[in-house]
Amino acid sequence: MFIRSVKFTQEEKEYFMREALLEAKKAEIMGEVPIGAVVVLDGQIIGRGHNVRELSQDATTHAEMIAIQEANRRTKSWRLEKAQLFVTLEPCPMCCGGILLSRIDQVFYGAKDPKGGTAGSLMNLLQDMRFNHSCYVETGILEEECGNILTNFFRQIRKKQKEAKKE
Amino acid sequence: MFIRSVKFTQEEKEYFMREALLEAKKAEIMGEVPIGAVVVLDGQIIGRGHNVRELSQDATTHAEMIAIQEANRRTKSWRLEKAQLFVTLEPCPMCCGGILLSRIDQVFYGAKDPKGGTAGSLMNLLQDMRFNHSCYVETGILEEECGNILTNFFRQIRKKQKEAKKE
Repeated sequence: MFIRSVKFTQEEKEYFMREALLEAKKAEIMGEVPIGAVVVLDGQIIGRGHNVRELSQDATTHAEMIAIQEANRRTKSWRLEKAQLFVTLEPCPMCCGGILLSRIDQVFYGAKDPKGGTAGSLMNLLQDMRFNHSCYVETGILEEECGNILTNFFRQIRKKQKEAKKE
Repeated sequence: MFIRSVKFTQEEKEYFMREALLEAKKAEIMGEVPIGAVVVLDGQIIGRGHNVRELSQDATTHAEMIAIQEANRRTKSWRLEKAQLFVTLEPCPMCCGGILLSRIDQVFYGAKDPKGGTAGSLMNLLQDMRFNHSCYVETGILEEECGNILTNFFRQIRKKQKEAKKE
């Protein structure tokens, strides 16, 4: 159904997802919800991003958007037709929209987001043939690690909130 | 169903839509697809934007996103819970996502986008109760003017393409 520009081996998929996880860890250190993304072209990372919503106080600064914007700058083009995006969490509507608008060819994500994900969970914006672009989507790459970093982050927050209440 | 922070009169709605149209005209002059948006808070415009995809070569530079980002900067907050957005064309998935993430209270748009609009046409992301935010949506404000600026733009492009073929 989808003619892909390249086909990655499982090893390659995990390599790039680990790079996305590195980005998520940068967010975690800053106290931001740990989500990371990379954009890949011809086997090279051309865009990296992690969620910085609290630091930037800008609602649009999701990992995927920052990675896409960097890839656009690096290639001097809004078209990323031969590029792939790796992201630790299933994208939201904004990021799915950014992926479609930049014509990204393939999207790989780690953990599913049953509450807000729109690349398979609540709906699948990336494969809705009514839009003028759609892409290959694969999930489950390093799913456990990608999920755990988020679960641990929110567990820590709840713990701190509980401790603050006690004081 | 939706408790709105303010209720605009028809005159107020048209005033702010004219401001969005002014933004669209800035895009038109630059040869960009003429779409414009403004974000309003307490009756004041706190964010303005027009589509600059070709100039920026950044797929994410839609009118709504730029207006939201400016409003975030001006208020030093990603939360725009008491703000309204006026845009000349029905928002796409990316911009609907940006609206939801910034918690905008009310969205007013001029022309419908039957091919790619996701605030009523193909779907309604802004009022899908599965997301953690939804907003009041109203369409048809200065619909004809908002639609005409786009129709004329694409007519001019086709005319130029035809002339170029003849030469």
